[in-house]
Amino acid sequence: MDKEKILKVLNETLALGRKDIPLGEVADYIPELGKADKNALGIALAGKSGNVYTAGDAESRFTIQSISKVISLCVALESRGYDAVFDRVGMEPSGEAFNSIVELDLVSGKPYNPMINSGALAIVDLLLGKYTFTELLEISRKLCRDDGIRLDERVYRSEMENCSRNRAICWLLKSKGIIENDVDEILKLYTAMCSLSVTACSLANLGLILANDGVDAISGERLLSSSTVRVVKTIMLTCGMYDGSGQFAVEVGLPTKSGIGGGLLSVVDKYLGIGIYGPSLDKKGNCIAGGAMLRRLSSEFGLHIFAP
Amino acid sequence: MDKEKILKVLNETLALGRKDIPLGEVADYIPELGKADKNALGIALAGKSGNVYTAGDAESRFTIQSISKVISLCVALESRGYDAVFDRVGMEPSGEAFNSIVELDLVSGKPYNPMINSGALAIVDLLLGKYTFTELLEISRKLCRDDGIRLDERVYRSEMENCSRNRAICWLLKSKGIIENDVDEILKLYTAMCSLSVTACSLANLGLILANDGVDAISGERLLSSSTVRVVKTIMLTCGMYDGSGQFAVEVGLPTKSGIGGGLLSVVDKYLGIGIYGPSLDKKGNCIAGGAMLRRLSSEFGLHIFAP
Amino acid sequence: MDKEKILKVLNETLALGRKDIPLGEVADYIPELGKADKNALGIALAGKSGNVYTAGDAESRFTIQSISKVISLCVALESRGYDAVFDRVGMEPSGEAFNSIVELDLVSGKPYNPMINSGALAIVDLLLGKYTFTELLEISRKLCRDDGIRLDERVYRSEMENCSRNRAICWLLKSKGIIENDVDEILKLYTAMCSLSVTACSLANLGLILANDGVDAISGERLLSSSTVRVVKTIMLTCGMYDGSGQFAVEVGLPTKSGIGGGLLSVVDKYLGIGIYGPSLDKKGNCIAGGAMLRRLSSEFGLHIFAP
Amino acid sequence: MDKEKILKVLNETLALGRKDIPLGEVADYIPELGKADKNALGIALAGKSGNVYTAGDAESRFTIQSISKVISLCVALESRGYDAVFDRVGMEPSGEAFNSIVELDLVSGKPYNPMINSGALAIVDLLLGKYTFTELLEISRKLCRDDGIRLDERVYRSEMENCSRNRAICWLLKSKGIIENDVDEILKLYTAMCSLSVTACSLANLGLILANDGVDAISGERLLSSSTVRVVKTIMLTCGMYDGSGQFAVEVGLPTKSGIGGGLLSVVDKYLGIGIYGPSLDKKGNCIAGGAMLRRLSSEFGLHIFAP
Repeated sequence: MDKEKILKVLNETLALGRKDIPLGEVADYIPELGKADKNALGIALAGKSGNVYTAGDAESRFTIQSISKVISLCVALESRGYDAVFDRVGMEPSGEAFNSIVELDLVSGKPYNPMINSGALAIVDLLLGKYTFTELLEISRKLCRDDGIRLDERVYRSEMENCSRNRAICWLLKSKGIIENDVDEILKLYTAMCSLSVTACSLANLGLILANDGVDAISGERLLSSSTVRVVKTIMLTCGMYDGSGQFAVEVGLPTKSGIGGGLLSVVDKYLGIGIYGPSLDKKGNCIAGGAMLRRLSSEFGLHIFAP
Repeated sequence: MDKEKILKVLNETLALGRKDIPLGEVADYIPELGKADKNALGIALAGKSGNVYTAGDAESRFTIQSISKVISLCVALESRGYDAVFDRVGMEPSGEAFNSIVELDLVSGKPYNPMINSGALAIVDLLLGKYTFTELLEISRKLCRDDGIRLDERVYRSEMENCSRNRAICWLLKSKGIIENDVDEILKLYTAMCSLSVTACSLANLGLILANDGVDAISGERLLSSSTVRVVKTIMLTCGMYDGSGQFAVEVGLPTKSGIGGGLLSVVDKYLGIGIYGPSLDKKGNCIAGGAMLRRLSSEFGLHIFAP
Repeated sequence: MDKEKILKVLNETLALGRKDIPLGEVADYIPELGKADKNALGIALAGKSGNVYTAGDAESRFTIQSISKVISLCVALESRGYDAVFDRVGMEPSGEAFNSIVELDLVSGKPYNPMINSGALAIVDLLLGKYTFTELLEISRKLCRDDGIRLDERVYRSEMENCSRNRAICWLLKSKGIIENDVDEILKLYTAMCSLSVTACSLANLGLILANDGVDAISGERLLSSSTVRVVKTIMLTCGMYDGSGQFAVEVGLPTKSGIGGGLLSVVDKYLGIGIYGPSLDKKGNCIAGGAMLRRLSSEFGLHIFAP
Repeated sequence: MDKEKILKVLNETLALGRKDIPLGEVADYIPELGKADKNALGIALAGKSGNVYTAGDAESRFTIQSISKVISLCVALESRGYDAVFDRVGMEPSGEAFNSIVELDLVSGKPYNPMINSGALAIVDLLLGKYTFTELLEISRKLCRDDGIRLDERVYRSEMENCSRNRAICWLLKSKGIIENDVDEILKLYTAMCSLSVTACSLANLGLILANDGVDAISGERLLSSSTVRVVKTIMLTCGMYDGSGQFAVEVGLPTKSGIGGGLLSVVDKYLGIGIYGPSLDKKGNCIAGGAMLRRLSSEFGLHIFAP
C-alpha cells in the first residue's frame, strides 16, 4: 500500500475506535492516572522500511504501565536466561485478573506468568542489582527508538503512594522465597518502569523490534536475541490481555500487551509494530477503542496469526 | 526435503521421543485405557501434496479421547455459529486441570473454554438433536480421511461405567441452565466421540485440514469455513494442552490438542498436519514422548508460530 | 414463670419478629416453596414438664427442609456409629453457602460437615438400605411427638424436578468414592426427608429431646444416646446456620438449625426445645423473624450457652 | 474433689498426654521457637476458690503466641466496642489454616474472624494509638495474675525477622482499607503481644477470668464486661483451634485457644480455667498432648458444653 492509502485506513480505523470511547472509563485508582483525557486516541504503525504512520494523538505522552512488563521480561531473559526466569515465574495464562493474589497463594506456589503483577515483580527482582533504573531507561529508549522517554515523576509518586496491594504481593513472594531483594527497592524499580512516559509511536517501534526478530530494522543492530523475542511474543499472545487474553487471541490474533495508562503494544510478526493510545478502558483494564481498532485491522488485512 | 530425508528425520525424532517413554505413565483411571502398550510410539506428517510420511506405530488404532473436542468444536461452530457457541462456553485458558469443577462453580458462571471437559460437554449439548452419532462419525472419517474410524465399544463401555465426574459436571451445567438436553444423552454422545478409534495418520490428516484453511488438500473440497478453522487453531494454541498449554505454546508454538488415549494432533499452519500416538503420558495428561518430539521438530525446522 | 407470663413473652417476641418479615424473601427457587405465606409466623416452646407453649402460626404445616439433616445425622450416628459417619463427612464449619461445591472439590476431599448439602447427602447414603423412608418417617414422628407429619407430595415432586445441583453434588461424591448407593435413590430419600411436613410445635418437641439428653421428657424413654445428642448439638452450634453460623453462635448462642421452608429448630440445653416457623428468609437462607426472636429470647432470659 | 484427688487426676492426665508427644513436632519456622524442649509438658487448673492445681512443667515460661489474640480481642471489645470490632473483622469460622490469604482476598472482603492472623492484625490496628505495649503488658499481667510476664526479646526479634507473610497480610488489609495505622507499628505490636512469656498457670488464671464472667475470682474485681467475655468464649469455641475447631468443639466442647509456642488456654464456663504447655504440635499447629488431655478431662468429668 502507498502512504496515502495507509493513512486513510488509519484514520478510518481511528474513527471506528472513537465510537467505543464512551463505553469505557479512565482508570482512577491512581489519582494521577485519573487526570487523563478520556477522548484522547492515537495509533501508530511502524514498518520495516523505517516509516512510522500515525493518526490521532500518536505523539501524546502517557505512562507505559504494564507494557513495561514486556521490556522487563526481555531484559531478564537476555541477562539472566530462560531457566532463571522460569524457575521463578510460570508461563501459564491464569484466567484471573491482573492483580489476583489467590492464584499465587493457592494453586501454584509461583506466579502464573510474567504479565500479571506478581510475576512482573518477581522479574524486576531478577533485574535489581544487575541494572540501575537509568540503564533500564536507556534500554527502553533504545527499544522504542524514543529519546523523549522519561520518568513521569507525578505518576511515579502517585503510584508509590497507592501500591499497598503490590507491596502485599511482594511480601508474599518474599515469604515464599521467590524474591531476594529489598521489597522497597523492587517496588521503586517496578513502579519507575511503569511510570515511563511513552507515545503510540514509541510502542509501535518496540513492536517492530519484536516483529523483526529482535533486530532494529533501520540500523540493522540486533537488540534482542531471537529466542527472547519468540518467548515474549508467545507470552504476550497467551497472557497479554489479562483475563481477556483468550478472547483477544481468537478475535485479533496478534501478540499484544495493554497498560492501564491506555497504551497497547501489538505485533504483526515479521511485518509491523503497532502502538495505540486511548485511556478509556474496558472492564478488564484494556484500551477499549484499541480493541475495536485491532479487531478491524486484523480482519481487514488478514493479520491474525492464523489468517489464511 | 525429499521423501528419504523426511523419513530419516521422523525416525530420528521417534528415537528421541522414545527416551522419554519410561518417564510417563499410561492412563489407568479407565480400566480399558490401562491396557495400552506403554512403549507404542508413532508419528505421521501430512503435507499439502497429499503425501503422508510416517514412522513407528503410525497405523495403530487408539481412542481419540479429548482430541474429539476439536472435531465437536468445529462442527458446533459450523452448524450453530460463533455466537451460540461462545454464549455458553468461554475462550479463556483456565490454568486448571482438565476436569476441574472449581472454576466452573466459582469464577465464571460458564465453562472456561471448549477444551476442558465442562466446555466440551456444553458443546456436545449444542450438537445433540442436530446430529446423530452416525453423522458425527461420518464427519470425523471425512475430516481424518480415514474410513477405518469406528466406535471402540470396549472403551466406550468402560468409560460410561466410569464417568461419575463428567456426570457431576453435566448436572452442574444443567443447574446453571448451560445445557438443555438429557444428561444421559449428552454423556453418551460425548463418550462415543471420545471412543472413536483413530491412528496417528488420521490425526495428521485432520491437522492438515486445519493447516489448509479448512480445505481438503487433495480433493480441493472445503470442509470447514476459514473462520471456524482460525478460531479452533487459536483455542488449541491457548488451551489445548490443559494446564501445560502456556509452556507448550512457548516451547513448541504449534496449535496442538492432546488426548489421554495417547494421541496428539498438531498443526503447522499453512503447511502440515502432524499426528502422534504414544500412550505414556506426562503428569498433565499429555503424551510425554510427543512433547519431546514436537519440541525437536519445532526448533529444528523453525515451525514455531513466531519462528523468525 | 407461670403459663400466662410465658405466653405474654412469646406474643411480645412474635410482635418483635414480625417487624423483620418485610426485610426478607420467601425462597422461590423451588416453585412449590414460593407459594408460602410470607407473613406467617409462629413459635413454640416445649419444656420438660411436657407443656408446649405457642404463639402465632405454631400449628401451620410447612416442610422441614434442611432441618431434616439433624434427624438424619441422629439416625446415622445411632445406627452406623461416630467413626463411620465422620470417616465420610467432616465436622468443620465451612465459611461457605449451603450448596457450595468448591470446598468439596478443592480443599478437603470430603464434605466439610453434615449440615451442608454435600455432607447431608453422604449421610443419607449411610442410611439407605438400613432404613426405608417409612421407617424414617416413623422415627421423625416419634422424635417430634407429631403423628401428623407426612410427606408433602407437591413439594417433594417440585424439588425432585429442581434438584440438578444436588444431583451434581451426588455424582461428585460418587466419583470420589464417598457414597455407595444409587444416586437416584439417595436423592429420593434425601428429598423425601426434606419434604416432611412439620409445625413449629413438632420442632419444639424435637428440640426438647436434644435438650433432654436424648430422652423423651414425658414418657421417659431414651430415644437417642447421650453421645449422639452431644455431637449433634455441637455441630448445630458451629454449622447449623450456614455461613451465618459464627455470628449466630455469638449473638444467640443456642444450637440451631434452619430450613429454607422457614423452620428453625433451637435447643436450650437441659431446659427447652424451641420451634419457629416464618418463611420470610434473610440473605443466608435463615428465617429472618426467627433470628430476631431468638436473639431477643436469648438476651432477655440468659439462654446463651455462655450466659453468666 | 479434694486437693489430692485433683492432683492425682492431673498427673494421670499428664501421663496420658505424654504418650502423644512423639507424634507431634516443635514449630521451627521461627528459629527461636525451634529451640523449645519437645518433651516439656505441664498443666494448671485455676478454680474459683483461688487455688491453682498443677502438674508437670506448669511454671515453665514460653511465648503466648496466638493465645494473645484472645487478650487483644478482649481489650478491643472493651475499648472500641462490638460494632467497631466487627465492622472490620467477621466472626465466621473459616475452614482454613491460620495464615490463609485466599479467603481474605477472594470471599469476604474482610478477615473471617479474630482468631486467624489477618483478623488479629486488624484487631491490633484498633488498639494502636489507644494503648502502648507497656499498657497491654500490664493488662496481660493482670488478666493472667502473673507479674512475671515479660517480652521475650529473642523470640520477638526472631519473629520480626520472619514475618514476611504477616507483612503481606497487613499490606493486603491496608489496600482494602481495613487497617489504618503504619504497617510496621502494627507488626511490632502484634509480634510483641505474641512474644509475651507466660506459663500454664498464667493461662489457667486467664481462663478463670473468662469462666467467671470477667470477674477476678479472688479480688472480686471486674476486669472484663460480661458481654465481652461471652463473645470471646463463643469465638474461641467456633474458631480457636484453626481448621480443627469444629472437631475440637465436638470432642472436647470447651472454648479453647492454641498458640504455636505450645500453649493452650481453655475455659470450663462458670468453673475453671485450664492452662497447658507442650510445644510438640499436631499438624494443625495445636499442642498435641494438650488435645488428648482435654479430651480426657472433658469426657471424664463431663466438662463438654453439652455434657448431660
